[in-house]
Amino acid sequence: MPTYRLDLAWDGTEYSGWQVQPNARSIQGEIEKVLAMLYPGESPVVLAAGRTDAGVHALHQIASFSVQGNRSTMQIHRFLNARLPNDIVCAAVSEVPDNFAPRGMSKEKMYRYRILHRKHSCPFRHRYTHQVLQDLNIPAMQEAARYFVGAHDFQAFQAQGCSADTTIRKISFAEIKIEGDEIHFEVIGKGFLRHQVRIMMGTLLKVGENKISPMEIKEIIARKDRKLAGMTAPSKGLFLVWTSLLDNDIKTE
Amino acid sequence: MPTYRLDLAWDGTEYSGWQVQPNARSIQGEIEKVLAMLYPGESPVVLAAGRTDAGVHALHQIASFSVQGNRSTMQIHRFLNARLPNDIVCAAVSEVPDNFAPRGMSKEKMYRYRILHRKHSCPFRHRYTHQVLQDLNIPAMQEAARYFVGAHDFQAFQAQGCSADTTIRKISFAEIKIEGDEIHFEVIGKGFLRHQVRIMMGTLLKVGENKISPMEIKEIIARKDRKLAGMTAPSKGLFLVWTSLLDNDIKTE
Repeated sequence: MPTYRLDLAWDGTEYSGWQVQPNARSIQGEIEKVLAMLYPGESPVVLAAGRTDAGVHALHQIASFSVQGNRSTMQIHRFLNARLPNDIVCAAVSEVPDNFAPRGMSKEKMYRYRILHRKHSCPFRHRYTHQVLQDLNIPAMQEAARYFVGAHDFQAFQAQGCSADTTIRKISFAEIKIEGDEIHFEVIGKGFLRHQVRIMMGTLLKVGENKISPMEIKEIIARKDRKLAGMTAPSKGLFLVWTSLLDNDIKTE
Repeated sequence: MPTYRLDLAWDGTEYSGWQVQPNARSIQGEIEKVLAMLYPGESPVVLAAGRTDAGVHALHQIASFSVQGNRSTMQIHRFLNARLPNDIVCAAVSEVPDNFAPRGMSKEKMYRYRILHRKHSCPFRHRYTHQVLQDLNIPAMQEAARYFVGAHDFQAFQAQGCSADTTIRKISFAEIKIEGDEIHFEVIGKGFLRHQVRIMMGTLLKVGENKISPMEIKEIIARKDRKLAGMTAPSKGLFLVWTSLLDNDIKTE
């Protein structure tokens, strides 16, 4: 069966996340709906390298599907972009071996969280940033971010009520950067717990407000207590920037 | 009567333009609705330095209103931003002399038109750019833009069915710039005819597609024939960047 790789980007504002859910618009659902029109009689299932939550955006995600029908990659590409909503875009379609499985092959992902740090909001960025009005101790946030790097038990940074097999995750990069009137938190890791990046961001904001010291990040990790970490920052500021696959590194846009 | 200056920005996607119109959402209408709540019994009228069309965005526009009621600029500022929709933002409120009239005092305006020049669209910029797929002759467009500079009769660049007193307008700056995967057309002038910037953009695209030569801009101006100029580029790519007032130059953001 021909298998295709899709390189995707989307504005997550209007969606319940990647995964198909009853009574909700999902990225997966929108793409599968269009592919079902292109392959009548088949119901192609699209699998992504990972799921994203409601409201989270993607600059570059990789997905795949397998079908019986015979269409060129050019036909698939044009058909998708002509029929997908404006806030979901397919950047590329390519034919891949039928053992191509983005989830299993996913090596690392990079996320970026965008804080708009100024007194009045911005009509063009309110969908893509979380606004913070108060002064922030940026050097403290920068120091704190570094304590996330390494393999740690991130139980304190997991959405409550979740039960992953293990809560140990390895973070290879975590940095706070200033970009004009925005503060960006960038983090790279093989996998993340549910809401992990947003809780890390909320905890860094607590550091920025001088409510906790940078060093306390280590203690919060050690004590594994969700209540010691900060709030879950709103999903609208979170972007999946890229996913790298084992044999096939891609870090564009 | 106390008079206040408002510095405003908005995403025009969901609006019928600046001016109040029956059965349509307008920027002016949204602001007046909120001010009417702040000043019960009064119906403040908000006047801008100029009108913008449906779908056009503003990075910085200046407006004013006069009222009987006594509120501090801080109160007005907070009240507006707490109640205005997310896509309209008040960046500043200041008290001004009661002869402050942004329209009469308007000296020059800068507009920017954004073209997204790549093969696939962008989920984050489809509201703010007009996408062009084909190759464009950028040096020809850059040369052509320069022929707009000066005082000319721009009758060929006016929306059909319009009758301004005079169609002579003075353009002090007109340039095509490359910004990553976007092409920006920036133009400064004291006043513009209806759809003038969008028709200038459409004509520059005709030059970029090598359908007409840069020099033909001069001829289109001289012949005053709308049919010789290009299409009216879609409003979503157009931004009012700033308005400068006679005694009070402002060129921020």
